[in-house]
Amino acid sequence: MSPDGPRTITAAAELIRRGDLTPAELLEQCLARIDRYEPRVKAWVVVDRDGAREQAERLTAELKAGTNRGPLHGIPVGVKDIIDVFDLPTGCGSKLWANSVARQDATCVSRLRQAGAVILGKTVTTPFAFLDPPPTRNPWNLERTPGGSSSGSAAAVACGMCLGALGTQTGGSLTRPASFCGVCSLKPTHGRVSVSGVLPFATTLDHVGVMANCVRDLAILFEAVAGTDGRSGLAQAVPAAVREVDRRLSPDNRERPPHFTRLHGLFDERAEPAMRAAIDRLDGDLRTLAATETRIVQAVPPAGFAELHRHHRLVMAVEAAHYHGARLARHPEDYPPRIRQLVEEGLAASAVDYRAARYERDILYGQMSDPAMWSGYYLTPAATGPAPDVSTTGDPSFNAPWSYTGLPTVSFPVARTPDGMPLAVQLVGRNEHERWLLAAAAWVERVVAFEPRSLPLD
Amino acid sequence: MSPDGPRTITAAAELIRRGDLTPAELLEQCLARIDRYEPRVKAWVVVDRDGAREQAERLTAELKAGTNRGPLHGIPVGVKDIIDVFDLPTGCGSKLWANSVARQDATCVSRLRQAGAVILGKTVTTPFAFLDPPPTRNPWNLERTPGGSSSGSAAAVACGMCLGALGTQTGGSLTRPASFCGVCSLKPTHGRVSVSGVLPFATTLDHVGVMANCVRDLAILFEAVAGTDGRSGLAQAVPAAVREVDRRLSPDNRERPPHFTRLHGLFDERAEPAMRAAIDRLDGDLRTLAATETRIVQAVPPAGFAELHRHHRLVMAVEAAHYHGARLARHPEDYPPRIRQLVEEGLAASAVDYRAARYERDILYGQMSDPAMWSGYYLTPAATGPAPDVSTTGDPSFNAPWSYTGLPTVSFPVARTPDGMPLAVQLVGRNEHERWLLAAAAWVERVVAFEPRSLPLD
Repeated sequence: MSPDGPRTITAAAELIRRGDLTPAELLEQCLARIDRYEPRVKAWVVVDRDGAREQAERLTAELKAGTNRGPLHGIPVGVKDIIDVFDLPTGCGSKLWANSVARQDATCVSRLRQAGAVILGKTVTTPFAFLDPPPTRNPWNLERTPGGSSSGSAAAVACGMCLGALGTQTGGSLTRPASFCGVCSLKPTHGRVSVSGVLPFATTLDHVGVMANCVRDLAILFEAVAGTDGRSGLAQAVPAAVREVDRRLSPDNRERPPHFTRLHGLFDERAEPAMRAAIDRLDGDLRTLAATETRIVQAVPPAGFAELHRHHRLVMAVEAAHYHGARLARHPEDYPPRIRQLVEEGLAASAVDYRAARYERDILYGQMSDPAMWSGYYLTPAATGPAPDVSTTGDPSFNAPWSYTGLPTVSFPVARTPDGMPLAVQLVGRNEHERWLLAAAAWVERVVAFEPRSLPLD
Repeated sequence: MSPDGPRTITAAAELIRRGDLTPAELLEQCLARIDRYEPRVKAWVVVDRDGAREQAERLTAELKAGTNRGPLHGIPVGVKDIIDVFDLPTGCGSKLWANSVARQDATCVSRLRQAGAVILGKTVTTPFAFLDPPPTRNPWNLERTPGGSSSGSAAAVACGMCLGALGTQTGGSLTRPASFCGVCSLKPTHGRVSVSGVLPFATTLDHVGVMANCVRDLAILFEAVAGTDGRSGLAQAVPAAVREVDRRLSPDNRERPPHFTRLHGLFDERAEPAMRAAIDRLDGDLRTLAATETRIVQAVPPAGFAELHRHHRLVMAVEAAHYHGARLARHPEDYPPRIRQLVEEGLAASAVDYRAARYERDILYGQMSDPAMWSGYYLTPAATGPAPDVSTTGDPSFNAPWSYTGLPTVSFPVARTPDGMPLAVQLVGRNEHERWLLAAAAWVERVVAFEPRSLPLD
């Protein structure tokens, strides 16, 4: 990461609090990184320089007048381009919607503004947030994919073009790009963050989440975006996430370290050797280096995992077809091959198969949530391996189970391949336990003490 | 109205029910009228011919298979262009938003679809639904305004291009254009119809309402669009409006006819002679011709009326500035003079004045709702006179009191000037009493027995 400017929200907020950095200066650091990297990385659909400068100036003036809104005051964030930002287009990766200006902020964006964040622009999404590759490149290797569908958010945060970003996940659209780009991600419990103002993909699977450069930053962003808006029944405020992270990391904390359940089975079978090696090493490190009191249970996923990916895809296909079906018939030219295929699958699906998939989901949710099944937090690789080439956005199979069951996940980088590509793990928690999950992840992150060697592309 | 095809939803629904007309045939009648009149009237921003034909064919097939969704099954309706229709632009009369495709139906549109309506396209609104004149012309005289801001909805219904339409009102944007164009309008109680998916203007004053060619049609449309969507706290279903109209009009009904309170004061002072004559004649007719049991109380508005228009404008200005203020600074070229002036007024307003205006509103609401104040329904002209020339959209001063207090109103034509321009009256009811208000209006409509002489422009 560049020496000229803080890498994390946590660090920037401290500089701002002390008066050593203004929101306007921080924004210029981010804009300078955009100037430097964006021509190669292509993370943004729109960078709203004028709008962001106005916001940063206003927030700088607020600070001078003695008002600090908290740790997001003056922090530049990127917003995935399926999420509405007032008076900017919500392009959704669609050709026909490229000029579709939003007339209201999405709830999550409006909450970020309230917390003092500077909305810097819209980050690239794959078309309609599915698997068709985006123009964005992986900043660690321009021949590789950044992952998808929150491609631009992951790449932008990795380059320090913004210090945090909003993304969404229906299959593996937060965790996978975060893993490929070497940044951290939180996919909250299903429903926890309002989807009001967000393009639907498959509504029983859609999640709004966040990306940043450390786990504590995820807690900061999560506290800001979670909460009821009177429009999304499940949305709920989570006031104590940052406090829980800080409590866990406090030198005065005498609690036992968290426990983990390492999942094998599928996660061993599909992991590439580099990823296997990375998580084995983490498993060993957790037990020996720093945390002799940590218990790591070894487990295999329940039987429902055998059918999971087929069911997840079916639910996604049917619900995507519910939204896109008629429009695909009308504008076939606006649908690249993978999303078109998915919608066509959904249109052809039988209702009984869809019902069965939703039913199996409930059984699997029960199994995965059963206290007898696990201890602490599930630990798995965040992706099957490092970022592949740009003909794909990578394999979401390690993430789909959590989109399907709705359990919250946190991912963060722990290692790097010999050729410099990031590798990340994910922790999975119980429903609505994000604050403790984030605290456990922050604890592991500190044990691992993984630091990217330099800003990508430098 | 044209002999080739039914004039009202009520008549069309009966023909469809009997199998004498299909939704596909009805749509072609409407499209033929659009071909004939639209080049002169300019009521539409988008006519979605292909989409409407698909909907009408599907609904025709449904009927053949034995499913009739009710009185809106197969009825073509227009939607004011500040209300979202999936995959059509919501232009809002803005140059910069002309291609802003909506990614979801507004709640009221989605409810119309559910009831079987054919969404025919988007009707012209004045810019951001304020007073700057639109391209639309009055079908009864192309040198006159159709009124605003729901200009296209009123003109399209008047020409039979569609049999019903959605509009909105913050000042007089439903009642005034309906009156100028000779159609009927319902402005429901504030909050009764969800504004989700509708461009905000001044949120404490914004109403979604409907237009059609008879009062019973208003009841049909109102039943469809009213109702909760989990997003708008006040929205509420009103299942019995059509039944109440039919009960009131039934030959077996032995109830006493409704009572009315005719408001003088402002409504006499500002009414032009033709309008004064029309409402005096109606007042007399109601008492002598058909309804000896009808009681008409003569009253003047409460003292709060003296300040009302100033307060209403202030609330509208401040709330419009809340939404548009920053955008006006950014895109001044997108704001024609009247809306720009309003937003600038709002930006310059003092908070105490705004608070006072909101406070006075509550007092006025109490006065206007007090049972001691009135008997039955308030009766006033729907506009100060017939449609003026196209340099203006006309005077909303007879409508603003009801937007301001939130009381529901129904308007319908009762007369015509010697040169053929329609004149309408409005009835005002108690909060949430739309069904009885509609029944009373249908009763007056029948007593008046006013029939437009022919389709405008023929």
